[in-house]
Amino acid sequence: MALYVMKFGGSSVGDTERMKRVAKRIAEKQDEGHQCVVVVSAMGDTTDDLIDQAKLLNAEPPAREMDMLMTNGEQISIAMLSIALHAIGRKAVSYTGWQAGFRTEPVFGKARITDIRPEKVKQSLEDGAIVVVAGFQGMTEDGEITTFGRGGSDTTAVALAAAINADVCEIYTDVDGIYSTDPRIVKCARKLSEISYDEMLELANLGAAVLHPRAVEYAKHHKVRLVVRSSFTHNEGTVVKEEVSMEQGVVVSGIAYDKNVARISILGVSHVPGVLAKVFGSLAEAKIDVDIIVQSGVLDGKADFSFTVALSDREKALNVIEGLRSDLPFSEVNSEDNLVKISIVGAGMVSHPGVAAQMFDVISKEGVNIKMVSTSEIKVSCVIDGDKLGEVIKALHTAYQLDTEEQVFVGGPKDRR
Amino acid sequence: MALYVMKFGGSSVGDTERMKRVAKRIAEKQDEGHQCVVVVSAMGDTTDDLIDQAKLLNAEPPAREMDMLMTNGEQISIAMLSIALHAIGRKAVSYTGWQAGFRTEPVFGKARITDIRPEKVKQSLEDGAIVVVAGFQGMTEDGEITTFGRGGSDTTAVALAAAINADVCEIYTDVDGIYSTDPRIVKCARKLSEISYDEMLELANLGAAVLHPRAVEYAKHHKVRLVVRSSFTHNEGTVVKEEVSMEQGVVVSGIAYDKNVARISILGVSHVPGVLAKVFGSLAEAKIDVDIIVQSGVLDGKADFSFTVALSDREKALNVIEGLRSDLPFSEVNSEDNLVKISIVGAGMVSHPGVAAQMFDVISKEGVNIKMVSTSEIKVSCVIDGDKLGEVIKALHTAYQLDTEEQVFVGGPKDRR
Repeated sequence: MALYVMKFGGSSVGDTERMKRVAKRIAEKQDEGHQCVVVVSAMGDTTDDLIDQAKLLNAEPPAREMDMLMTNGEQISIAMLSIALHAIGRKAVSYTGWQAGFRTEPVFGKARITDIRPEKVKQSLEDGAIVVVAGFQGMTEDGEITTFGRGGSDTTAVALAAAINADVCEIYTDVDGIYSTDPRIVKCARKLSEISYDEMLELANLGAAVLHPRAVEYAKHHKVRLVVRSSFTHNEGTVVKEEVSMEQGVVVSGIAYDKNVARISILGVSHVPGVLAKVFGSLAEAKIDVDIIVQSGVLDGKADFSFTVALSDREKALNVIEGLRSDLPFSEVNSEDNLVKISIVGAGMVSHPGVAAQMFDVISKEGVNIKMVSTSEIKVSCVIDGDKLGEVIKALHTAYQLDTEEQVFVGGPKDRR
Repeated sequence: MALYVMKFGGSSVGDTERMKRVAKRIAEKQDEGHQCVVVVSAMGDTTDDLIDQAKLLNAEPPAREMDMLMTNGEQISIAMLSIALHAIGRKAVSYTGWQAGFRTEPVFGKARITDIRPEKVKQSLEDGAIVVVAGFQGMTEDGEITTFGRGGSDTTAVALAAAINADVCEIYTDVDGIYSTDPRIVKCARKLSEISYDEMLELANLGAAVLHPRAVEYAKHHKVRLVVRSSFTHNEGTVVKEEVSMEQGVVVSGIAYDKNVARISILGVSHVPGVLAKVFGSLAEAKIDVDIIVQSGVLDGKADFSFTVALSDREKALNVIEGLRSDLPFSEVNSEDNLVKISIVGAGMVSHPGVAAQMFDVISKEGVNIKMVSTSEIKVSCVIDGDKLGEVIKALHTAYQLDTEEQVFVGGPKDRR
């Protein structure tokens, strides 16, 4: 007998038929002799519908009240799933985030978990029940309802798995597992049987929207064994864990991309100490996340530098820079979108020099310009023209020997909460 | 400055436009210098929609999970209303039932309130906020979410008004107040400026579906001043309170009716002690509410008796009676529907003999048979053929001098949670 935490995203429980299928799936697990704690997201578009309705009332609804509103999506889901489990003769008990013991910081919309007191969950497991827990939500010590922000249900599942010492945390989604790259672009993408937390973190951060990075970090920190698998098939998924048996010659495990990229360049900046600190300090104050930063060489005491931000932050970032013009003379600021950041990720990279060079070579052979580069121990990222995404990813996938014989046909990662 | 509890039913907050109107209404009250605590029901058909969806999963969903499901209706409402109040520049805070301090028995679907600990509500009032509380719901001492059943939001409003010592508890609904009878049937029905708790209780119990009897009982017990008024107009409503200034010559305050009536008759029952106890004990065990009970005279040691139950309980009641056949020989059992119970209610009746006789006289002059009669200190009820409802009510309304000059055009009482 093992203790499983099973997380189902919004598209897996999108309607009553899917809800029934999920209930059956859980019952199968119980019939195999296991204990089950299930974490669910809101059904399908429920949360978006609630947000849309709130916006009709108030273009800028207060965060506290939005949390009060949005937590209903998950609370409806847990009740429905529990009701569906009872319909097939299973004992099931649903708990909201606060009932399951999730305590958070007093921050609305993106609270971090401070403590988990899963007494009710443990008691119900002892009573032989399937426990259904609302993802994405908790309560402050003062009894205020909070949400975790994007990827919150993944985090609920992983954190609960750690708190109750579960043997496995399974993330059920609408893809079969973690792929070497997006199967919508590369038909012969390879499903990975396993991947390390660090690689998964890079892939998750880089836009492979199957697992939220925060959940992966939590899993890494608490050594929770994660499995990403499909809620629609019984195929084996991808195991995410600490140490991964290195396959022969595999240096690059996966290729991720991110279209949500804008480049901003500031040209002709006087090269005095503190310039970078001033620019990026101001951007941080405006809560703009900056990703890649590149500075050119200095010419005549002037430097150019470029950085990337999320597309939605582009205008805001340009305004921040304009606001610095008096303090920080520069000759020009410009920006560019329709870009894509492509990243190769692999734990084996550390011991294989020349991986980055090979990447640049493959891209240039496709006749594509590399606009920016960024590296870490286990990844190399290049920003290129967005129109070249498909051909570059395919070429890299082949170059790093990731192609498989089988072709994959899936809708792609969509299950986002 | 007074402290108001304002309760808005589901149809008053049925969509975002109505929600905005309610927010404006509350703001007006605040602008008059008052403190406002607002209790809301679920928006429009939200609760019914949730129930329908649950039934697709499970024809007999467990009560605990239905409470988990249905409480979302009110939680969505409070968030939306608070968001709408913020949109017009008001400080507002929403609280679920458990956050507002409602503690209940550990019973799902129809829990009774055991305690109210309104610290958060009081604190937010002190902070100058409008407090928006979810009706119809509470929490057990064990942290289980419960609902109060039908009329639950009225009860929330009244109980909270008592707990925070509010000056007035206003029940906003889709009618202007309490009428002498249903204005859909009698166009010249009179709006009552005031009515006693006891009269209201009789009217509420008798199917005048504006205020739930449980809420009226609570108000009577805690001496909460109730006002029933329209959420769509600024007309003065009806005050429900302990003592009512008796208008000259007014013996009957209102006429109610209830179509949800079935008659069951058991004929030729051996008239031995304990027969009635056995029959009605068995019906009570089966949780069937019996209303009027009439026993005929005894002939040859045999008696006939009749009673009324809700239409939905008719088949169940007949089965219970059939199950008693061996214990309790009777010659025949029969039942009848398409009935209506018409009741005249008035605190002044006690001191005016002959009111019942007048009622029978009016009904017989309409050529209508009276099938059953029941009386209390302040009401007389007659069960008649359902098809005669309109003419009998009109005749009684005129006979008891309740007709007014103005004609009322309203949709009638519909706002039921």
